[in-house]
Amino acid sequence: MSKNIQDLTNLIAELPGLGPRQARRVVQYLLRANGGYKKKLTDGISSLSNHVSQCLRCYRYDEINSEKLCTLCADQNRDTAVLMVVEKDVDAEGVEVAGIFKGGYFILGGLLSLTNSRKSFIEPRIPQLQDRILKEKPDEIILAFATTPEGDFTARELKETISVKFSDMKVTILGRGLSLGAEIEYADQETLRSALQGRSEEF
Amino acid sequence: MSKNIQDLTNLIAELPGLGPRQARRVVQYLLRANGGYKKKLTDGISSLSNHVSQCLRCYRYDEINSEKLCTLCADQNRDTAVLMVVEKDVDAEGVEVAGIFKGGYFILGGLLSLTNSRKSFIEPRIPQLQDRILKEKPDEIILAFATTPEGDFTARELKETISVKFSDMKVTILGRGLSLGAEIEYADQETLRSALQGRSEEF
Amino acid sequence: MSKNIQDLTNLIAELPGLGPRQARRVVQYLLRANGGYKKKLTDGISSLSNHVSQCLRCYRYDEINSEKLCTLCADQNRDTAVLMVVEKDVDAEGVEVAGIFKGGYFILGGLLSLTNSRKSFIEPRIPQLQDRILKEKPDEIILAFATTPEGDFTARELKETISVKFSDMKVTILGRGLSLGAEIEYADQETLRSALQGRSEEF
Amino acid sequence: MSKNIQDLTNLIAELPGLGPRQARRVVQYLLRANGGYKKKLTDGISSLSNHVSQCLRCYRYDEINSEKLCTLCADQNRDTAVLMVVEKDVDAEGVEVAGIFKGGYFILGGLLSLTNSRKSFIEPRIPQLQDRILKEKPDEIILAFATTPEGDFTARELKETISVKFSDMKVTILGRGLSLGAEIEYADQETLRSALQGRSEEF
Repeated sequence: MSKNIQDLTNLIAELPGLGPRQARRVVQYLLRANGGYKKKLTDGISSLSNHVSQCLRCYRYDEINSEKLCTLCADQNRDTAVLMVVEKDVDAEGVEVAGIFKGGYFILGGLLSLTNSRKSFIEPRIPQLQDRILKEKPDEIILAFATTPEGDFTARELKETISVKFSDMKVTILGRGLSLGAEIEYADQETLRSALQGRSEEF
Repeated sequence: MSKNIQDLTNLIAELPGLGPRQARRVVQYLLRANGGYKKKLTDGISSLSNHVSQCLRCYRYDEINSEKLCTLCADQNRDTAVLMVVEKDVDAEGVEVAGIFKGGYFILGGLLSLTNSRKSFIEPRIPQLQDRILKEKPDEIILAFATTPEGDFTARELKETISVKFSDMKVTILGRGLSLGAEIEYADQETLRSALQGRSEEF
Repeated sequence: MSKNIQDLTNLIAELPGLGPRQARRVVQYLLRANGGYKKKLTDGISSLSNHVSQCLRCYRYDEINSEKLCTLCADQNRDTAVLMVVEKDVDAEGVEVAGIFKGGYFILGGLLSLTNSRKSFIEPRIPQLQDRILKEKPDEIILAFATTPEGDFTARELKETISVKFSDMKVTILGRGLSLGAEIEYADQETLRSALQGRSEEF
Repeated sequence: MSKNIQDLTNLIAELPGLGPRQARRVVQYLLRANGGYKKKLTDGISSLSNHVSQCLRCYRYDEINSEKLCTLCADQNRDTAVLMVVEKDVDAEGVEVAGIFKGGYFILGGLLSLTNSRKSFIEPRIPQLQDRILKEKPDEIILAFATTPEGDFTARELKETISVKFSDMKVTILGRGLSLGAEIEYADQETLRSALQGRSEEF
């Protein structure tokens, strides 16, 4: 096959979650795609270079305005009283797509490591989070981390850190329980325990 | 290989979740196992025939006493004020192994079908459940079904059925939310919504 | 998030094998990628529009020259005496990447259906294959199809069809046996039979 | 649940490939199984204790006769001219179930380790294999090992070892190629190479 096609295949194989085989499938699709699709795709990718940067307030990568605020932070309709702290950009996007939250986000950028408590490969932006809390004084901070040992450890440490400076701040974590599609037989003990504690009369 | 071994392999391949290959592995293990293990195994299987039946009260298969009650129903230390209704025996065992619940169980035996509302292949024991509620008048009934459309539908229908006869009965379902090990990025929208609603300050 | 980013995510989610979540991960990667990578990627995709078409001889999608021949068909070093017939472009690419074959390819475009013998959703290019054989008279035709019922059926039908017109043509299929990493215990009976028949003293 | 049932569940959970959940499912099945099935199962397991041992000739675990030969080695209809050497009992059983081989087996008991060439956790029975070859002088020895680096290394080493003492002995390995159900696109390079080399006009 042509060197151009091979080069493009190699570039696409670098994308996260795509290997050489998947890249070949994508290139085959592009080879047959109409010109309009390819134009929109390349225009979309090119436009990223010019308008995208990290938001000064929430640290998401997004299009930013003249004040270096992302589209969400620039949106006057978002509720500044509730701040959701997540580990990664894609976590915030998952919550956005669900359409269930109208507050603000803060991308922590990493979790605390259990083996090396205060240091992880990517240092969590804890000082920046404290600055934001100090400046905006939200009513509630939701720590929305993975329900893993690292996620739980980070939540507990952050809660402690926050309560030192902001003693009456409401700090919450997301509810635990049975996820959609769960079977009782296969649920782990921790999840069953949370589900039993959190049982509800409303359904 | 010998006919005896082949016959035993075929018998073991009939067990749920084991096919011919897994059965061959099990037989190889048994071929090498010490006599004590095999004696305990065959004694354990043989003893099932004589003492096991379906409990008259909760419909679990278990060893029963002279009053045809299973070991859990015969246990005076269980709390009769809380009744957990589950679909299958293995669901009750999962909850027991978690060691988080000290009330009584009722095995419904099936869920209502959405396509054919009141009939499923295995008819749920709804009249028997009503008899038990009438007789024991628990304070709370926990409907612990899979978080699937059938499980949710069965829970809603049962709640309605129960409230007709027992108007002030507390009927609950297990809490929904993030299960152990969940990542925000990969959580489905329904689970995120439940997790956000059920967020908690205690952690 | 910005409409531009959302639009790009949706475009990328259309690519084969990528859903919304994977698309979000790819966009996050692109948001952070350096300008050089993005330029090469968009240039690569754009260049496809102008130079790529289906080869007149082998029916692969590739860059074509002024005679409408792809890079492989235009390559004077390829051996025209051996013709490998494959179902799809990606099959030919898999063989090319392995670097084990220096003959020519023909993309059949589909397999014969077993349920509806001579018709499949994508009609295999059997007349075009016969034209090519007539024109080039290769010494050997290798039918390199999936080892599925459809692949085997297509191979047998093609062999018959070819032998009517080219009675002494050598027609082969790829060898069957244990693939790399196979375990004897888990090998299926057909594969074990082929492997036993095809056993070799050379290793 | 009753202690007897819990004990039986724990015993079954020790079997290879079964964990606690699978064991619970098996016990539930046994609780409902008819007495005939359970009698046959326990009789089958019990009979293993008395009649089963390792065959003196092929080292398989099986019922043995008064000369300590397994059912296959005692079978006069098996062809002693072809000897298949496999790693494990279950490999021989897989070949037997396929019904494609009428020669004798030898269970090597392990493969040579690549990192520590002549030693592995379970020492392969190479001296015993040499004794058997010396005594029976088969026409062909088939080395039927996993197509892994260890399997290939063991085959090459055994071939060398055998050829020192039995210089004109035919030693073969199983054929490599596409296994049943393989797709060209997803085949690895080694397998494609073997499949191309081993291509066949008979199909």
